Amino acid sequence: MEIRTDLALEAREMIDEKRSEKMRDKDALPKGMFVKTRENNYILITDIEITSEEAAKKIGKKIGKYLTLEFKNPILDTLDNQENIAKSLSTELTAFISEFCNNSPVIMIAGLGNRNITADSLGPKVVDKVVVTRHVKNIENNDNLEIDARLGNLCAVAPGVMGVTGIETSEMIKGMISTVKPDILIVIDALASRKTSRVNTTIQISDTGIVPGSGVGNHRMELSQDVLGIPVIAIGVPTVVDAATLVRDILEISNNDNNLKLESENEIINMIVTPKNIDIAIERLSEVISSGINMAIHKGFEMKEINEYLI
Amino acid sequence: MEIRTDLALEAREMIDEKRSEKMRDKDALPKGMFVKTRENNYILITDIEITSEEAAKKIGKKIGKYLTLEFKNPILDTLDNQENIAKSLSTELTAFISEFCNNSPVIMIAGLGNRNITADSLGPKVVDKVVVTRHVKNIENNDNLEIDARLGNLCAVAPGVMGVTGIETSEMIKGMISTVKPDILIVIDALASRKTSRVNTTIQISDTGIVPGSGVGNHRMELSQDVLGIPVIAIGVPTVVDAATLVRDILEISNNDNNLKLESENEIINMIVTPKNIDIAIERLSEVISSGINMAIHKGFEMKEINEYLI
Amino acid sequence: MEIRTDLALEAREMIDEKRSEKMRDKDALPKGMFVKTRENNYILITDIEITSEEAAKKIGKKIGKYLTLEFKNPILDTLDNQENIAKSLSTELTAFISEFCNNSPVIMIAGLGNRNITADSLGPKVVDKVVVTRHVKNIENNDNLEIDARLGNLCAVAPGVMGVTGIETSEMIKGMISTVKPDILIVIDALASRKTSRVNTTIQISDTGIVPGSGVGNHRMELSQDVLGIPVIAIGVPTVVDAATLVRDILEISNNDNNLKLESENEIINMIVTPKNIDIAIERLSEVISSGINMAIHKGFEMKEINEYLI
Amino acid sequence: MEIRTDLALEAREMIDEKRSEKMRDKDALPKGMFVKTRENNYILITDIEITSEEAAKKIGKKIGKYLTLEFKNPILDTLDNQENIAKSLSTELTAFISEFCNNSPVIMIAGLGNRNITADSLGPKVVDKVVVTRHVKNIENNDNLEIDARLGNLCAVAPGVMGVTGIETSEMIKGMISTVKPDILIVIDALASRKTSRVNTTIQISDTGIVPGSGVGNHRMELSQDVLGIPVIAIGVPTVVDAATLVRDILEISNNDNNLKLESENEIINMIVTPKNIDIAIERLSEVISSGINMAIHKGFEMKEINEYLI
Repeated sequence: MEIRTDLALEAREMIDEKRSEKMRDKDALPKGMFVKTRENNYILITDIEITSEEAAKKIGKKIGKYLTLEFKNPILDTLDNQENIAKSLSTELTAFISEFCNNSPVIMIAGLGNRNITADSLGPKVVDKVVVTRHVKNIENNDNLEIDARLGNLCAVAPGVMGVTGIETSEMIKGMISTVKPDILIVIDALASRKTSRVNTTIQISDTGIVPGSGVGNHRMELSQDVLGIPVIAIGVPTVVDAATLVRDILEISNNDNNLKLESENEIINMIVTPKNIDIAIERLSEVISSGINMAIHKGFEMKEINEYLI
Repeated sequence: MEIRTDLALEAREMIDEKRSEKMRDKDALPKGMFVKTRENNYILITDIEITSEEAAKKIGKKIGKYLTLEFKNPILDTLDNQENIAKSLSTELTAFISEFCNNSPVIMIAGLGNRNITADSLGPKVVDKVVVTRHVKNIENNDNLEIDARLGNLCAVAPGVMGVTGIETSEMIKGMISTVKPDILIVIDALASRKTSRVNTTIQISDTGIVPGSGVGNHRMELSQDVLGIPVIAIGVPTVVDAATLVRDILEISNNDNNLKLESENEIINMIVTPKNIDIAIERLSEVISSGINMAIHKGFEMKEINEYLI
Repeated sequence: MEIRTDLALEAREMIDEKRSEKMRDKDALPKGMFVKTRENNYILITDIEITSEEAAKKIGKKIGKYLTLEFKNPILDTLDNQENIAKSLSTELTAFISEFCNNSPVIMIAGLGNRNITADSLGPKVVDKVVVTRHVKNIENNDNLEIDARLGNLCAVAPGVMGVTGIETSEMIKGMISTVKPDILIVIDALASRKTSRVNTTIQISDTGIVPGSGVGNHRMELSQDVLGIPVIAIGVPTVVDAATLVRDILEISNNDNNLKLESENEIINMIVTPKNIDIAIERLSEVISSGINMAIHKGFEMKEINEYLI
Repeated sequence: MEIRTDLALEAREMIDEKRSEKMRDKDALPKGMFVKTRENNYILITDIEITSEEAAKKIGKKIGKYLTLEFKNPILDTLDNQENIAKSLSTELTAFISEFCNNSPVIMIAGLGNRNITADSLGPKVVDKVVVTRHVKNIENNDNLEIDARLGNLCAVAPGVMGVTGIETSEMIKGMISTVKPDILIVIDALASRKTSRVNTTIQISDTGIVPGSGVGNHRMELSQDVLGIPVIAIGVPTVVDAATLVRDILEISNNDNNLKLESENEIINMIVTPKNIDIAIERLSEVISSGINMAIHKGFEMKEINEYLI
């Protein structure tokens, strides 16, 4: 069985599904895999930690930490709930960053994806909304400048997709890092989930990097500390379900006619499943995620306050 | 059996599928339904005419003419093939228009759909690309103006979607018609198909009007001569497959477990299936369709020539 | 002397400039013109009322009420200040509306201008951000629907510009009104000012309607109660200075060489002067104005709360 | 006298204006400066070569080659004329490239500017329209792939502006070059002209690099072979006139009241002058320039043919 999902949470569920019911208890997790859940303001937070190669292999995810925030989609409909998610994201992201950096790191945001496809535009939209400060912080002899001491050192790039640039995202980011020299990279990307119920209702943070384009595009070289030389935190939201996966899952449940399966798959290869209101969902999610990032990096601002901050 | 598809072509196929194989020949069509196919430059053209209420009820489509142009999607990759489709569309559209108007009618284009959702933006993009002339043609005492005699009288509107405007598309269009007084309305909309293979590879022209939003949005009041008081020609392209339809079709083929069916459907309600490269497809299709319209209404121009025409 | 400015405030100043200094006191205003100023949270509010044809002719503005909110541009940089302006706008707009309607009117917003030119995109951007409710309010037998009682009845249209549609804005709006039947129309448009210092720092509300396109485009038929049959409130923001006006003003001050003047004018006809950061200014202004409208029509919401409200 | 213009052509004219009329002939050019003009299909081509430090200092431009194509703006209204300009650009660009590279170089396009400000969006729009091939050419063991032999090796980036990214454009480009390793960089940028008549009617090609943001934004570190280590060809189009420059020029002609001058300047600092139809102009110019680049790099295609080419 090959596990193909961008979410560690789903990879774990799929293992569960394969086991007999008796075995579905915590003790039965692979050695070196730890799962904890907690709830905060109607947001379900799951921490998954993978510490052994054995567990990594079983779950199909690299050794590292994976955290998911799960919420109901309608929760994005009120400002209060948006703020709750942004604050939770900010708290968890702060913990991830402090794992790698102590003081006031230079942080680069990379918003992956294609601006022209609604479901794939989450990354570029977050880049548009974060409050960048590096160009002001970096001015030499800026003693005369009054810079708000609460502001961290942030820059942000939207490298575009290979079909438009002719360049692998990893090459592009690697090059930018070589001159900009950030201490840490935070990558934002739209992911693919196996379940339609999880689309636009889950945010995953991980410290293991990311393989760009697993959501809408194709698999590309990974963005990770191994490849880039600096820590990489990935923030991903499933915005689509791969149509072939959806169909395969349905057919697996309903029967086992392999010929039928293959024929159906073939027809829907390169198709994605996405909600009808994807434009509003992406707008709200980019607001929530940029707010979470802004509050994690620029300390002591309220969500809306920092979103309107202008250098 | 309820037939739900925007394409008359598919409605007919679905009837075929329900009948025993022996009966699948032309003579077995419902009384008052006529189907002809021809080919032109690798484009398959199917004329469907429904002339009786009986056939209309059986096929689930109104009495009238339906024409589909089917082509291979990669055909849009070369300019030659784009021009072939645009020319075919222009020829067929000219025939549809001349059914209702003789001389030089005032024509209004209405591009339906949501500009912010890639798969639903076909209509507004066509509006951006047609060459409007009505404001110049309508100038009183324009004897001093040298207006190219080849240009027809065209105007174009993109009424937006109800979620943004709070207004039914049909109310909006009806109002515009009351002051602008066009002789004929051509509506452009993104449709839903039952088959992924037909997405972005089929153009349907019909003289029966359209129910806006059957593609991505919800069903709304129809745009038709009955409602609007002037002839309505609809140009539609399936850009998505309804996810519930896709799943239902797959399950119908593979088994008949109704509980399973309902559960799966429920999960994917309000989801659509769309190709990964939908941005490029919509760009090309809007180019081809606007060219077809431009050439049908402004006589004697080449495709690219008229596309660059500026009033 | 011909006065050409979209702002009543400027028209009045220009009269002042033509008079000798001694005469520049309130008593010297034309008969039938009344001017009052007040300040509210660093926002300067000027009420201008024109009640006689004589004053109307002198000032070059129709009989009616004109109110301007003037603020410093950097004031848009903090959320607090944005909220102050939105609240002031909401209060003043409520007063303008209650002049014409008592209870719960059906209100139509029309956002004029060209979405593709940054300085002219204010109207369409406000339309995107107001909370429309008419389609929900209008559902027959909606007793089972729980609709927030605070919500007013609002719809919103962005008719586009004549170069794209081939239709006069006034024809388009008049048609929509004939079927949608709103009780009052609120028009949003980008204006032209005479002074660069007033660009993006002034909001004018008037009850006399508007001549669309005086900002970036060309003069078109007016939108007013005379033409449309319902009360028209216009909200305008100068986002540009007409380049010819700017040059003429500079030359008038510096010398009187008419030949030079004409030559210079000729060269810069059809040019506009606009700030370099026009993208950010339009984004903020559309946020502030849509919030002001939302709070005036949907009672009892906070600015950010109502902005996130989803039907 | 300080000369501030992005165009070598204008720098030269300004020197001319300072000299007495007698001296305005070719022989009177500074030593080490050579100017030649020719015409091609109604396009005026001027070659300016600066070979000495003395001339460079006098003209305020670096040692190197500057070529301008001047055409009438309405010339962009017909496809024939667009093709003539694209072909001329292609021919001249080919000559500039062959100055530095012999065979089949890897070429990187960098489209500078802010996508959200119409007048500054030329660079990003050209990037969207060039046909990138590097990702296909670079596939190892691509013997089985049939790649059209006419295609050159091209990639393209739109680095964004410092206000959005927090990163100097030159840092961004330098980093990308370090991993992508192109043989030559072609930079596209919107420039500022001194004369409104030159806006959107002039294309400048130079081999000396560019200082990004001199059009709409602020001066930034230069993009040149000195800084980047590879040859840099710059393609620039004046899309705006700096408002302060315009006013200063007008005042210089009309009188010499310095107080007035300073006051006026102060008011319009950070303002730009741009045509009302800037959206259409940028759309056409980006089409023409991307076509010129495509034809220069991918040999043997017609303009429209290569524009529709899809990898």
